[in-house]
Amino acid sequence: MSPKITTELLKQLRQVMKSPKYVQEPVQAYIVPSGDAHQSEYIAPCDCRRAFISGFDGSAGTAIVTEQHAAMWTDGRYFLQAAHQMDNNWTLMKMGLKDTPTQEDWLVSVLPEGSKVGVDPFIIPADQWKRMSKALRSAGHDLVPVKENLIDTIWTDCPQRPCKPLITLDLSYTGVSWRDKIVALRSKMAERKVLWFVVTALDEVAWLFNLRGSDVEYNPVFFAYAVIGMNTIRLFIDGDRMMDPAVREHLQLDSTLEPEFKIQVMPYGSILSELQAVGASLSPKEKVWLSDKASYALTEAIPKAYRYLTPYTPICIAKAVKNASETEGMRRAHIKDAVALCELFNWLEKEVPKGTVTEIIAADKAEEFRSQQKDFVELSFATISSTGPNGAIIHYKPVPETNRTLSVNEIYLLDSGAQYKDGTTDVTRTMHFGTPSAYEKECFTYVLKGHIAVSAAIFPNGTKGHLLDSFARSALWDCGLDYLHGTGHGVGSFLNVHEGPCGISYKTFADEPLEAGMIVSDEPGYYEDGSFGIRIENVVLVIPAETKYNFKNRGSLTFEPLTLVPIQTKMIDVNLLTQKECNWVNDYHQKCREVIGAELERQGRHDA
Amino acid sequence: MSPKITTELLKQLRQVMKSPKYVQEPVQAYIVPSGDAHQSEYIAPCDCRRAFISGFDGSAGTAIVTEQHAAMWTDGRYFLQAAHQMDNNWTLMKMGLKDTPTQEDWLVSVLPEGSKVGVDPFIIPADQWKRMSKALRSAGHDLVPVKENLIDTIWTDCPQRPCKPLITLDLSYTGVSWRDKIVALRSKMAERKVLWFVVTALDEVAWLFNLRGSDVEYNPVFFAYAVIGMNTIRLFIDGDRMMDPAVREHLQLDSTLEPEFKIQVMPYGSILSELQAVGASLSPKEKVWLSDKASYALTEAIPKAYRYLTPYTPICIAKAVKNASETEGMRRAHIKDAVALCELFNWLEKEVPKGTVTEIIAADKAEEFRSQQKDFVELSFATISSTGPNGAIIHYKPVPETNRTLSVNEIYLLDSGAQYKDGTTDVTRTMHFGTPSAYEKECFTYVLKGHIAVSAAIFPNGTKGHLLDSFARSALWDCGLDYLHGTGHGVGSFLNVHEGPCGISYKTFADEPLEAGMIVSDEPGYYEDGSFGIRIENVVLVIPAETKYNFKNRGSLTFEPLTLVPIQTKMIDVNLLTQKECNWVNDYHQKCREVIGAELERQGRHDA
Repeated sequence: MSPKITTELLKQLRQVMKSPKYVQEPVQAYIVPSGDAHQSEYIAPCDCRRAFISGFDGSAGTAIVTEQHAAMWTDGRYFLQAAHQMDNNWTLMKMGLKDTPTQEDWLVSVLPEGSKVGVDPFIIPADQWKRMSKALRSAGHDLVPVKENLIDTIWTDCPQRPCKPLITLDLSYTGVSWRDKIVALRSKMAERKVLWFVVTALDEVAWLFNLRGSDVEYNPVFFAYAVIGMNTIRLFIDGDRMMDPAVREHLQLDSTLEPEFKIQVMPYGSILSELQAVGASLSPKEKVWLSDKASYALTEAIPKAYRYLTPYTPICIAKAVKNASETEGMRRAHIKDAVALCELFNWLEKEVPKGTVTEIIAADKAEEFRSQQKDFVELSFATISSTGPNGAIIHYKPVPETNRTLSVNEIYLLDSGAQYKDGTTDVTRTMHFGTPSAYEKECFTYVLKGHIAVSAAIFPNGTKGHLLDSFARSALWDCGLDYLHGTGHGVGSFLNVHEGPCGISYKTFADEPLEAGMIVSDEPGYYEDGSFGIRIENVVLVIPAETKYNFKNRGSLTFEPLTLVPIQTKMIDVNLLTQKECNWVNDYHQKCREVIGAELERQGRHDA
Repeated sequence: MSPKITTELLKQLRQVMKSPKYVQEPVQAYIVPSGDAHQSEYIAPCDCRRAFISGFDGSAGTAIVTEQHAAMWTDGRYFLQAAHQMDNNWTLMKMGLKDTPTQEDWLVSVLPEGSKVGVDPFIIPADQWKRMSKALRSAGHDLVPVKENLIDTIWTDCPQRPCKPLITLDLSYTGVSWRDKIVALRSKMAERKVLWFVVTALDEVAWLFNLRGSDVEYNPVFFAYAVIGMNTIRLFIDGDRMMDPAVREHLQLDSTLEPEFKIQVMPYGSILSELQAVGASLSPKEKVWLSDKASYALTEAIPKAYRYLTPYTPICIAKAVKNASETEGMRRAHIKDAVALCELFNWLEKEVPKGTVTEIIAADKAEEFRSQQKDFVELSFATISSTGPNGAIIHYKPVPETNRTLSVNEIYLLDSGAQYKDGTTDVTRTMHFGTPSAYEKECFTYVLKGHIAVSAAIFPNGTKGHLLDSFARSALWDCGLDYLHGTGHGVGSFLNVHEGPCGISYKTFADEPLEAGMIVSDEPGYYEDGSFGIRIENVVLVIPAETKYNFKNRGSLTFEPLTLVPIQTKMIDVNLLTQKECNWVNDYHQKCREVIGAELERQGRHDA
């Protein structure tokens, strides 16, 4: 992987930063955040502005370019990747390390007095704007919105915004109709005394209307906004997608409907002016509900006194608690996914010793097996297929320059998943096709102990996921090992593979309490730079637990693994497991055999 | 315990809330926080305004009185106590429960439009003011400072503010001179580019000058503020305490000193005007450092642009990391404390079966044994001596109305500690003088498992204490049990028994990372309302740990118990312990025997 040469691009950007054609006054710094106008984690090619200007294409990172400097903030998952992808024009700012300055502190340290710092107001979330603007102002600088995105002005071959056809999901998949979701949303709005709710996150729009798209790779979403009033529904979406008869039927666009369920379809680009009109029409005490992560541009459209901002929207919270249809769909999807992986492992066992299987071939083969399963749509993220030292690059994606051949001498880590029409999967298995070293087995077993500690944990209703994070680390900590990422994230139901508002991380303190029906990943790991990576990941469902004393009727919760893919026993040092942990592994494998074995039989895939 | 009758008092308070003599405009609500002007947890009798108006005298709680209502917010430790102490005029707001409104939400729900909410600006911390003021303003109300404390106006027999003599601590106790502490503080100030630092917390003033007092029961502090400049030191303190030759000598008040170490002594009450003068004298970019918990009144004295506010002050952080002299002192204090408790337990074993020992007698006896130890100063908090159902009242203090007799049929919980000139102790033991039931043993053993899980935990440098909290709960959770308080708090060195900035709690997300030399408590519990309470508490020192792989040289930490008081083995169900836990108990008891046994011998206390 050779770094992108950015000297010329940075020169051009620094020119437009001073050009009266684009900025009212010259800006001395320009911020290029990761996201799109919906604060998506995965973004369309046309929104990959930070990758375009810097070369670094990991999923998280913020670039800031000043007249003299160019700096990139990213987290522990991407330190190695960013260092490889960026040229010498860039300084890597390793977030989470003690001596790394925040973006604000760094700006204050490098900017000349009274500087202007520009940013696209559609890309920066309102909460970030507020924090940064305050910090800059207190140091005598100004954060200013630059209407035209300055990267777009120099990005001559920028791809078009995608506008792909939609998929409608019927009740058998979603469990609840979009009308009932609107009714539930309006009741939450009434509870909080707000008149309008603005849906800005793409997965929230998709979930609300029981529609899916493919505008963004891996995430079955489509570019749209929605504004829900107590008697109106406005959907902002482009293209001829609303001409599709299936979509018209699904949304009842041509039916005679009660007016409060009549959907007004409007152009995607008109959201700002429409929202400004809403803002201007409000009477005192009338409120508009937005996520505090909505863009600064949309947030500013509503006068401050009328805004009701929350970190998590009612849709985000409702979406996280899966209903019976969604849970059953997720179960089906995970069974199909396990069948595909069992086939893959069987194939790898046979092929790896021949020395012909590369990381890319293995990833492609995994996709091939998955794509044979019913209702397969696409992958849920770029497959992490990594062997040996590549395994230590936590969010590694094999490319021809780095592509290693799997061998009987190295650990192989596969973190992969798919979108099926009935559910989203995400599973990591770490394996060895020869004989693992004692040290590799030791580390693997600590990771497994952590995985089990979370998966088998029992905790009272109302517990937040971050309180479980240390369980995953305890066995590693005892020996002086740790990993620099969280332990789990929420998983969507045929939606984004990463979703809020719950998770299991030492970093997430704003997570909502875990509830029965929520689905998260459990994925501790251990990484030895330059040598190997280990991660064991299941997707698990929060379920009620039975305990002796039941928390004085407060109730208790635990997890049920939805992922049913065997864990390679060759990697386990059984002496390090307690009896309870041994039982967990045995019970898990028995369930895998029963459920996946039966499905393999049913599909006639006897070989695996 | 019968509730305080507050009908007449509330009537008087509601009158002064409207009286032009005290308020510019009538206030429709008046907030009575817990603290004093220093945001102390333990307060002098003259500052117990919330207890005076409501009857509830727990250590945490906020009263709000409106024209129609009187409401009290407190946390899980005090639900029972507050319900017992308050009459029907009061509504108890149980913090931490899902349906309990915040103070702001409640005010908004009960106040007439455009109300004024009054509060004493010296008592409310600036961060609380900000939050509450914002919430009220957004609902059309106003938070207003009321200069004269309205409780004081109706509190006819309010005691005088104490002004007791000071104790000077020499280097053998403190390890660092006050001059060196000033030098270190100024270097932190220079790092952050601030010109002034305002010391508002009483324990910070005491620590900085190596002085102790006895103005507040249990906390060896004295009423004072300090303002430290780069070349000046101002100490705001009342009374003739500065006339004491030992104090004058200690502070070198009569010596020829470099001007930057010359202490200017000023009246306690002049802090506001002096700080306003500092505020008025500042040039642009000159900053004043304050805790964000300093009072609103003092914070407002510095114009906003010149304030540098942090949640923890550099003194708070320096104070938390004990040096070798302090650690040795803490060790000595804990040995003496254990000697006293061993004597007490020996005495209880003999006396309890006679049926003559009440909770109060036991508490007094504990104090008597402690007071015989060298350098004993006073207790470090009100002894919690509770048997049977009283044990379930987490911060119970026996009074004649509730005083139960210890018996061979009930669990006895003793949470007690002392101030010695060389250190502060805090220890809880739960015991049975007859035969505990299987259920009592089961619960005790889960609590013990949690205690050991924290005490024996190994974790990487930089870990925050709250990440360890779930370790203490895991064994309880597995059986559907939990406790409604945090697991540990920082402990001062001959200072406050509760101190920041570290702790072990599911609630504390703003805690600073644990560092070698910090001292915290480890005190999980289990409480069965109406029946019994269990808690096992040691004070533990954070020490470097030796691990196999040492976190890639990041280093690792663990705890060493400073408390060396035996745990009653009769209460343990050994079958529920792992081998590792058994070993921990045996090793701990061996250390107790060696160290405390030797000291008992040395002191000629052979009986115990």
